[in-house]
Amino acid sequence: MILFQCDYNEGAHPRILERLLETNMEQTVGYGEDAYCESARRLIIAKCGADESLAVHFLVGGTQTNTTVIDAALRSHQGVLCAVSGHINVHETGAIEACGHKVLGMPSKDGKLSSKQVKEACEAHFAEDGPEHMVQPKMVYISNPTELGTIYSKQELVEIRKVCDTYGLYLFLDGARLGYGLAAPDNDLTMMDIAALTDVFYIGGTKVGALFGEAVVIRNNELKKDFRYFIKQKGGMLAKGRLLGLQFETLMKDGLYEEISAHAIALAEKLRTAFEAKGYRYLVPNRTNQIFVIMPDTHLDALKGKFGFAYQQRVDETHSAVRFCTSWATKEDNVDALIAFIDKL
Amino acid sequence: MILFQCDYNEGAHPRILERLLETNMEQTVGYGEDAYCESARRLIIAKCGADESLAVHFLVGGTQTNTTVIDAALRSHQGVLCAVSGHINVHETGAIEACGHKVLGMPSKDGKLSSKQVKEACEAHFAEDGPEHMVQPKMVYISNPTELGTIYSKQELVEIRKVCDTYGLYLFLDGARLGYGLAAPDNDLTMMDIAALTDVFYIGGTKVGALFGEAVVIRNNELKKDFRYFIKQKGGMLAKGRLLGLQFETLMKDGLYEEISAHAIALAEKLRTAFEAKGYRYLVPNRTNQIFVIMPDTHLDALKGKFGFAYQQRVDETHSAVRFCTSWATKEDNVDALIAFIDKL
Amino acid sequence: MILFQCDYNEGAHPRILERLLETNMEQTVGYGEDAYCESARRLIIAKCGADESLAVHFLVGGTQTNTTVIDAALRSHQGVLCAVSGHINVHETGAIEACGHKVLGMPSKDGKLSSKQVKEACEAHFAEDGPEHMVQPKMVYISNPTELGTIYSKQELVEIRKVCDTYGLYLFLDGARLGYGLAAPDNDLTMMDIAALTDVFYIGGTKVGALFGEAVVIRNNELKKDFRYFIKQKGGMLAKGRLLGLQFETLMKDGLYEEISAHAIALAEKLRTAFEAKGYRYLVPNRTNQIFVIMPDTHLDALKGKFGFAYQQRVDETHSAVRFCTSWATKEDNVDALIAFIDKL
Amino acid sequence: MILFQCDYNEGAHPRILERLLETNMEQTVGYGEDAYCESARRLIIAKCGADESLAVHFLVGGTQTNTTVIDAALRSHQGVLCAVSGHINVHETGAIEACGHKVLGMPSKDGKLSSKQVKEACEAHFAEDGPEHMVQPKMVYISNPTELGTIYSKQELVEIRKVCDTYGLYLFLDGARLGYGLAAPDNDLTMMDIAALTDVFYIGGTKVGALFGEAVVIRNNELKKDFRYFIKQKGGMLAKGRLLGLQFETLMKDGLYEEISAHAIALAEKLRTAFEAKGYRYLVPNRTNQIFVIMPDTHLDALKGKFGFAYQQRVDETHSAVRFCTSWATKEDNVDALIAFIDKL
Repeated sequence: MILFQCDYNEGAHPRILERLLETNMEQTVGYGEDAYCESARRLIIAKCGADESLAVHFLVGGTQTNTTVIDAALRSHQGVLCAVSGHINVHETGAIEACGHKVLGMPSKDGKLSSKQVKEACEAHFAEDGPEHMVQPKMVYISNPTELGTIYSKQELVEIRKVCDTYGLYLFLDGARLGYGLAAPDNDLTMMDIAALTDVFYIGGTKVGALFGEAVVIRNNELKKDFRYFIKQKGGMLAKGRLLGLQFETLMKDGLYEEISAHAIALAEKLRTAFEAKGYRYLVPNRTNQIFVIMPDTHLDALKGKFGFAYQQRVDETHSAVRFCTSWATKEDNVDALIAFIDKL
Repeated sequence: MILFQCDYNEGAHPRILERLLETNMEQTVGYGEDAYCESARRLIIAKCGADESLAVHFLVGGTQTNTTVIDAALRSHQGVLCAVSGHINVHETGAIEACGHKVLGMPSKDGKLSSKQVKEACEAHFAEDGPEHMVQPKMVYISNPTELGTIYSKQELVEIRKVCDTYGLYLFLDGARLGYGLAAPDNDLTMMDIAALTDVFYIGGTKVGALFGEAVVIRNNELKKDFRYFIKQKGGMLAKGRLLGLQFETLMKDGLYEEISAHAIALAEKLRTAFEAKGYRYLVPNRTNQIFVIMPDTHLDALKGKFGFAYQQRVDETHSAVRFCTSWATKEDNVDALIAFIDKL
Repeated sequence: MILFQCDYNEGAHPRILERLLETNMEQTVGYGEDAYCESARRLIIAKCGADESLAVHFLVGGTQTNTTVIDAALRSHQGVLCAVSGHINVHETGAIEACGHKVLGMPSKDGKLSSKQVKEACEAHFAEDGPEHMVQPKMVYISNPTELGTIYSKQELVEIRKVCDTYGLYLFLDGARLGYGLAAPDNDLTMMDIAALTDVFYIGGTKVGALFGEAVVIRNNELKKDFRYFIKQKGGMLAKGRLLGLQFETLMKDGLYEEISAHAIALAEKLRTAFEAKGYRYLVPNRTNQIFVIMPDTHLDALKGKFGFAYQQRVDETHSAVRFCTSWATKEDNVDALIAFIDKL
Repeated sequence: MILFQCDYNEGAHPRILERLLETNMEQTVGYGEDAYCESARRLIIAKCGADESLAVHFLVGGTQTNTTVIDAALRSHQGVLCAVSGHINVHETGAIEACGHKVLGMPSKDGKLSSKQVKEACEAHFAEDGPEHMVQPKMVYISNPTELGTIYSKQELVEIRKVCDTYGLYLFLDGARLGYGLAAPDNDLTMMDIAALTDVFYIGGTKVGALFGEAVVIRNNELKKDFRYFIKQKGGMLAKGRLLGLQFETLMKDGLYEEISAHAIALAEKLRTAFEAKGYRYLVPNRTNQIFVIMPDTHLDALKGKFGFAYQQRVDETHSAVRFCTSWATKEDNVDALIAFIDKL
């Protein structure tokens, strides 16, 4: 069986494993203060425009990273604006609320928030006679690509930034799949743009070539203060911090992160061509590594047991939307096999 | 200026103040374990069908009561289903989230939840392949009357109870305005029904004749255990517990609670007649003590400075919905003055 | 039976009840924004040295006030230094921890913290190589009088302030029994001193003449910001805020707070004279309204059923320490009766 | 420079890396539900006495594991008894409190809790007239070996178990260094004993041969329920769960865990012999992999820059206690080099 249901079915890029082997018995200090972490930090800062004031931290996983960043940013009466489909709103078992903060879910069909929505939520709150009866919006959480594979344009990000500045909100970008967003054919954002326009964002490793790991980049000084306390408290301070530093050092060197992201996108595009040829429509069109395609249930039945995919939702009596993902690890042969199978349906 | 914006503008029913005066220098033990609390408990149990196994506790205010009940009921991965307009979802500054629990807001136009919605939410959750990525629904929160003045029928409550039983959910009814719900012309619920159908509910005092105070009634044994720890921790264990016991003793005796609730409803009905005569429509029709009426902005301008009302929302370019409340304290003269003023607009 | 076990057995000073009666049917806006609250604020500011920049808020009870102040002040990695006997450490059912903050208990025999202890705790933390593995001290909580009836001298408070300034800590004084501390014969602090030396403190009403209520006074601007959100979230924003304003207005006018505090202290001193004549020793000597006296168990047995007292702890095989309290409400006749009874033991 | 300051300076046992390489491009389902996790579970259950009802879960790190277990076990008014030196009390940045639970620190010189202490704490709490004003003890947390390298005897564990049964407390054993405890010459406990006597414990991987990872073993059914929700919420549900399963499968097979633990203990014993020959005393004597030795400051100065050790505390004007650790990765040559250096001091 060939799995396409997610982008974390395999281990890590071979270069990463190689480096783990080479350095395995080196003695390094713990908790992210070793030379590999330092080197990875410098490489990330370089990609982000060489702004030396950026703080870079390495954490283990996405839910942990979201929780750590958001809890470090908010006081207990403040909430985070988020598309209803946002990962923190639906797929983290209430981790944000467990830290005491409300996720202020906002309607969204494509997984994105608009600057207009943010503006209206803030206006509604601060214009209130007694705003203290309600949770105060203090942060905007967006993911790029979103959970539905869509991406923000530079213009959209600039506009959200403006609203955040007007109302004193932090802008936090969840980049669990950032590589795949930056590699998308219709993308016009760079990592430098993102570092400049957000208060804090993270570069996903788990889904983009690493065994695990997310690199948090903080521009806003308020959020830098005492951040390591939060990493430790939320369980994200890996004893053998070297493992994280070394993985990101490898990904950020010699264009590896971009190269493997591009690989996933190329294969996703190939798959899209086949789906479109077959006349399938999309639940949400996008050009990143997640394809949300609407298929006849009979076709899905035929795929079962041979190809893994993720069930998303029923569309009508005879059709469902499902997700196929490519990743850094996807083999072209497997994509070809899937295409061949689909062709014959 | 005559205030109609809410049902807590005045102090307490004179009989309550009288009793406070009479007993002021008596020495009683603290924290709700005095004879007045005990007497009030017995009176409430009698109204609830004389089920001696019911636990009754007295707390100071509504937000505190909601927080205490919900935190006592839920573990940190569990959430509470609630209409989006529910008080805990919008008007308690994230108190439930601050205790670590997600409020699972569900669409509602009239402030009510349907058994169908609850069923669908539970089905969706428990049918999931990996439900542990999502907050587990464990409680249903309804208010009766709701924040929009509507009430549940006995049939509706029975059906929600059934779904709760199927999925192992607690049913919690916020009765901050319970008296006004039970006194509504279209109500078919009794306090006995509510005590029998919910796991826990509360009888509002603050808005129905007391200076302050809410009486929590618990039927489910799981929720009874250690409940006083939660009251204390959430700041609801009044040192001079007698104040709460005495107020509820007074309200529950000789039909006072029902009498003053009926007074508010009679005046609300009088006001409705006048509004309808004028051709005003309702944002949400109901027969309790809160009237959500749609009026021309010009009329609202005329009322300003003379009559207090609460602004609810814009309806169209020239109309807004506003709230007028009556209460146990409303004077018929004031209602008449408002009607006379409206008539002349 | 005559109760001496605590200072909250009775209701409120008659002048307060009188004012409640007079104003009962007045219509006022809710949530602490009425004219009575405003008037009480002005009176408190005047007592605190007429510093108009002080923020004053009214809450219902002590646990709630401590929780609200501390949660408003601390981020989740920060803790509050406190004597092990501090109310927040032992008698609030973990309310501070329930908001996510560690109480850093420090040894103390007399209920007080010394500036030296605070200094050492801060030095130990900030000198650490990896301080982020430990909770960061950010606030000092002291009570005055303490839970053991002792008080701070001005010099002691000045020194704690200095250490707080050195390490960037907030100083919070719990004044649940403040009146009795200020009225003690050996006190050299004024409310003005306290307002000047702390970042935030509160003036206790519940134990000093009010039905309930605590007045929080905030000097530090950081703590003022959004404080009403916290009051609401923690359940302390009384719908009928007038009740709190009116009580504090009455207490703060015409020297009533000082007068009734002095009454309690005079009776405590009278009782002490009798205890000392009898040869009893103190568990912790002090001159405020709580007397922690060591008595033979046989004497305690004789008192039972006639006089109420609070059991504190066993001292040796035949002696125990118990607490007798006086208050604004204590009648001299009752004190005389107790003295007469003791004399005959 | 040769590092002895902790037991997590290196990577993983070579067999683990080998297995990571071999399986790197296998496609497995995520979140701990793959075949490697299943296999590791079976191996652990076998070591724990083949009780098939045991639940086994894999998490990433120790702080996370402690937080997850404790938050899953306690309601918000309940606390966990713990030696003051316990990891959760001092070295996890208040992670337990951040989840809303008080750590009830108890005095201890050797890092251990006695059944007597637990009994007294429970008696004191439940005998109280108003226990609800205090945090309710509901769990006992012990570490074995402790943070000071000491271990519990079987008899001690049996007695703590008895007290826990009497008062309805959960017993949780933190086994971050479990292998080194079981391999100690003076140990009489087996993993089977621990599985039988505790409600929940964990087998440390991070410090005993794995790159990272802790295996939680749950015997008490109450704690099994919904445990995966807590793992997810606290950020411990590794996307590529295979990494954890595979590491524990390797450690639990063919006696590897016992073998590498014994290696560390043998080298620690060798080091002890040298320390004792030199006349050094111990801060806390023990036979596990952490040696807390008291040395003249002049000797420590000589070691600096050549050998890494952890500073523990000042003992007198000229002596300090420091920690030397061995681990699965310690090379005998390095121990010999240290011994030779010490000999010459």
